[in-house]
Amino acid sequence: MFIEIITVGNEILAGQTIDTNSAYISAELRKIGIAAHYHTVVGDNPERLLSVLKKALFRTDIIIVTGGLGSTVDDITLETVSRLTDKKTIHQAKLLKNKVGTASGLIISWQKKTLIVLPGVPKEMTSMMPEVTKYLKKKQKNKTIIKTRIIKITGLPERIVSRRLKGILKIKGNPLIGIYPHTNYVDLKINAEAGSKEKAGQLIKQAEKKITQRLGIFIFAKDEQTLEGKVGELLRLRKRTISLAESCTGGLTANRLTNVPGSSKYFKMGVITYSNESKASILKISGGLIKKKGAVSPEVARLMAKGIRTLARSDLGLALTGIAGPGGATRTKPLGLVFIALATDKGTICRKFNFKGDRTAIKLKASEAGLDMVRRYLLTS
Amino acid sequence: MFIEIITVGNEILAGQTIDTNSAYISAELRKIGIAAHYHTVVGDNPERLLSVLKKALFRTDIIIVTGGLGSTVDDITLETVSRLTDKKTIHQAKLLKNKVGTASGLIISWQKKTLIVLPGVPKEMTSMMPEVTKYLKKKQKNKTIIKTRIIKITGLPERIVSRRLKGILKIKGNPLIGIYPHTNYVDLKINAEAGSKEKAGQLIKQAEKKITQRLGIFIFAKDEQTLEGKVGELLRLRKRTISLAESCTGGLTANRLTNVPGSSKYFKMGVITYSNESKASILKISGGLIKKKGAVSPEVARLMAKGIRTLARSDLGLALTGIAGPGGATRTKPLGLVFIALATDKGTICRKFNFKGDRTAIKLKASEAGLDMVRRYLLTS
Repeated sequence: MFIEIITVGNEILAGQTIDTNSAYISAELRKIGIAAHYHTVVGDNPERLLSVLKKALFRTDIIIVTGGLGSTVDDITLETVSRLTDKKTIHQAKLLKNKVGTASGLIISWQKKTLIVLPGVPKEMTSMMPEVTKYLKKKQKNKTIIKTRIIKITGLPERIVSRRLKGILKIKGNPLIGIYPHTNYVDLKINAEAGSKEKAGQLIKQAEKKITQRLGIFIFAKDEQTLEGKVGELLRLRKRTISLAESCTGGLTANRLTNVPGSSKYFKMGVITYSNESKASILKISGGLIKKKGAVSPEVARLMAKGIRTLARSDLGLALTGIAGPGGATRTKPLGLVFIALATDKGTICRKFNFKGDRTAIKLKASEAGLDMVRRYLLTS
Repeated sequence: MFIEIITVGNEILAGQTIDTNSAYISAELRKIGIAAHYHTVVGDNPERLLSVLKKALFRTDIIIVTGGLGSTVDDITLETVSRLTDKKTIHQAKLLKNKVGTASGLIISWQKKTLIVLPGVPKEMTSMMPEVTKYLKKKQKNKTIIKTRIIKITGLPERIVSRRLKGILKIKGNPLIGIYPHTNYVDLKINAEAGSKEKAGQLIKQAEKKITQRLGIFIFAKDEQTLEGKVGELLRLRKRTISLAESCTGGLTANRLTNVPGSSKYFKMGVITYSNESKASILKISGGLIKKKGAVSPEVARLMAKGIRTLARSDLGLALTGIAGPGGATRTKPLGLVFIALATDKGTICRKFNFKGDRTAIKLKASEAGLDMVRRYLLTS
């Protein structure tokens, strides 16, 4: 069964809103082995929508239309669908209730084709998708299962990950293994297709094993898990608490850690010592030392980590100091230079990094490296 | 002149990558008065791409294809375009140099139509767009200018903004005025179309005036400016410094403020006093008071604001304490209850909020409300 997803909306054609609905629907349907062959976006224009619908009915079996339904815009989608089929067909359609909004969805069977109409508001559309998937799964003849696993890697740039995975990354065949770089980490996606869940799961497992052999400790999480989520899990497991002293990251590391539900169990305190006075007043680092070594130095990073650990009476103290830019760089201390220190009951470790990118990229990469130092420490301690 | 934008890529059809190229190209072309009538996504499949190209040539004047060009995938786009036109046409095409990657772009004139082929990698595509826009602008007969202005509103929910703008919001006509809600603020987009820049600018100005009359102080920024950027601008202008004491927002407010380049000029220090001990040890709030009133109370919020202002020796001290969930709520202190206090040389103000949503939404809404309190204070002081 092949699907075309049609999105109706002037704001998308104008580039003011990015169409995320099509991607969501495609990903959901892939899980039950149904592939989208086309995504089409058309404006709030009945004539053009009609011609797009006709074309879709000709080239695919199932058409899913989102948008152009409901209150703010005229009901262009339903009107156009009625013109294509007839009023009676629409009255016999299966109704999809809207639990989070007003406009209902519809599943219409017509001339051996299935036409599904969903609202354009993402949360309304997604709330109806389980019922849509269930309906389509029943209709399906050749049941193919597609399973996906995401493996997340940090601490290595994309080109090194690619090199290490030589002969494993595959853009054709089964399973497919693709690489997708982010600012602060790299995703590997394994897609396996098989006749059963078990067989697809086996293919995933085999690929995963090969990847783990090549990348080991650099793998920090799978699927939906985040680095901060993983760090939180390890802190709970090892019964440790943490505190943070941030300079260049300006609260980003604390924000990431506290995005995890239940983080108050292990996160005790954070300080953002942006000014030199604040490094002195809260963390008791002497102004003389800061002047001599500079606020961005391994010495200050170590004292920040020890200082916050003592102040918070936490098991671990993580500190980050660096130059996020655009100002503040010197010849000896370039943009992107960051020192990260981790104080523990076994002593303090400090690492030096040189990150590339703009202010927000450097903040993100630094917080990533800091959280990863905590992850690695907890794994081996 | 009407445009169809075609995106080639299995990963987009599969829902693994969101198509942002089409939105970018649409938005760029709208600025010179060229509207996209269709966006189409098709996989790395020569037959289906060929049929999509034929349809596009039939229904539009200009076709822009991104993706399927270059190294990792086979050159499916160029191959298919050669099958459609002929090799000679392709050899006579105008070449678009790739300054950031390897695959070149092409502008092909064929049978009174224009076919533009661009790489799928966003930064390579965007680097070629200025030349594409220049080329199309020259070709254009009826020169229409489209100008856009975004007006950002915070502190009012979408339905209240809509109600206040009754008779002003317009989904048809010129200028168009649309409303786009975000988790923490509301965007109004004004789109004006005219024969000249000046005329389009006038239309924008008139609409803006009407909107300002109805929404006044709730408007915090325009176009690309952010709330944290506006707060930073006001702090610089009024020569004030600020410090933060965050509990429920966990560093998000500091992170937003420090995303602004140059924020070290006015942001002195932040503390994230997540545990009650840390509220006592850093901000000198008595454990007895916290026990009596609760950490989420106006009394504690006020003391946090005053405490951080004193500690940091800053002009302003902002404090946020609340229940971000999912745990921690009680019958008298529900999920989403947040107290925000601002300490200044004129005294301390405190406001109570009840936010809805999940943990990250409550954090975001609270930080927004806190930054907005600072904005309003600076505007009137």
